[in-house]
Amino acid sequence: MRVLVTGAEGTIGTAVREHLGGRFELVSLTLTPQEFASHVADIADLDAILPAFEGVDAVVHLAASPAIETPWEDVLRNNLVGTYNVFEAARLAGASRVVFASSNHAVGMFELDGAPGLYRADDDRRYDHTAEVRPDSLYGVSKAYGEALGRFYNERHGLRVFCLRIGSVTAADDPTAQSENPLLDLDAEERKNRMRAVWLSRRDCAELIGRCLQVEDVRWAVVYGVSANPRRFWDLEHARELLGWEPQDSAPL
Amino acid sequence: MRVLVTGAEGTIGTAVREHLGGRFELVSLTLTPQEFASHVADIADLDAILPAFEGVDAVVHLAASPAIETPWEDVLRNNLVGTYNVFEAARLAGASRVVFASSNHAVGMFELDGAPGLYRADDDRRYDHTAEVRPDSLYGVSKAYGEALGRFYNERHGLRVFCLRIGSVTAADDPTAQSENPLLDLDAEERKNRMRAVWLSRRDCAELIGRCLQVEDVRWAVVYGVSANPRRFWDLEHARELLGWEPQDSAPL
Repeated sequence: MRVLVTGAEGTIGTAVREHLGGRFELVSLTLTPQEFASHVADIADLDAILPAFEGVDAVVHLAASPAIETPWEDVLRNNLVGTYNVFEAARLAGASRVVFASSNHAVGMFELDGAPGLYRADDDRRYDHTAEVRPDSLYGVSKAYGEALGRFYNERHGLRVFCLRIGSVTAADDPTAQSENPLLDLDAEERKNRMRAVWLSRRDCAELIGRCLQVEDVRWAVVYGVSANPRRFWDLEHARELLGWEPQDSAPL
Repeated sequence: MRVLVTGAEGTIGTAVREHLGGRFELVSLTLTPQEFASHVADIADLDAILPAFEGVDAVVHLAASPAIETPWEDVLRNNLVGTYNVFEAARLAGASRVVFASSNHAVGMFELDGAPGLYRADDDRRYDHTAEVRPDSLYGVSKAYGEALGRFYNERHGLRVFCLRIGSVTAADDPTAQSENPLLDLDAEERKNRMRAVWLSRRDCAELIGRCLQVEDVRWAVVYGVSANPRRFWDLEHARELLGWEPQDSAPL
């Protein structure tokens, strides 16, 4: 199974290459040349990225401006236009599925409303795939848009589409580090609690993506990507039921 | 109350000018010069539209590419970029509310799934504001995006935002005419039934917008714009409860 990974040089792309390289024939698409083999093209240019999609069975779409406070011009170019181009290129190439890196920031207002109490282990609020769309940023709007676009490609063009509202995946992969939400004024303790709530280990993240690439009988999914952290406030049940995904890691209490 | 109407020359814009011109101080923004006084500018150009927003209390945002099968380049320019520019200009100008012409096509897959049986008077399926986002087109995606963007401006920037999923408003205002959904292959009888289901009279449409401009204590709404048609399949209860809007017209059975 040939799988194109956009943004393959990023934190999640690196985890995918490390953990899934033995299971799938991975092809990379990156904005700049890398030390590994990669198609180099800008996702904002549909014609330029088409050759990378030739003969591809599935696409893992990670390329985007990832900062919560990305300015509009970059949101427009990299997230709105780029995501359309990737779905359209996948359709034109006859790929059967797209795994789209959405984000919890599509519903990030729930965190802004609830933090820092929301990070407490004894706070049992959980937000699932039925939560109202409440973006906390233009970045979050672009992810809600990507999910709506994915639904369109799913229902009108027959692509299988998996939208992952991913938590915090870091290069250091350290659940005891501090995680910041730039929209919140958190102290050091609260930032530690936040990481323990939203952490997604690199291998859990890669395995979640792997499940999306392999699962049968599922044509559409919106799920959260978070390890089995006691402090989590996003739902894991839907991903378990739909995808059979069981996170192996858990941040300490 | 000074109200800027974008796309003021269109079918709905004309209804707004005719029905609400006596109740509000209306200011028009159009792409081309009109027989009535209008700021002429392209909503795809933020700097160009800013002067039209000066001193405005509210914005009725109708300008967009309205065809269901609008090609991507126009969706991008007129609906994605244009809608961002209008919300951003409203914020910069200190306007307190935006009424956004969304569309039932943000959830149009329900109609594609259910038609033509859905148009029958004895079919009691109703889709309300809690229905899943299921766009039937890139146009529908752009409207789902506009709602997410509106929610962001509502929650992060304090604008009151009203998203209207408008049915079929026509210049002829004739509920016995045929209404087509270009995504469905309907015969003449089915097209007549469709109009009797989705019709929104021009005065009901204008009054709905008027309610959004005047209602107190409501900061966010997603409602359907449809007259009290027996064949309707979109919800009216939420608009009644939230806005106190009661359609005066009804298509014949």
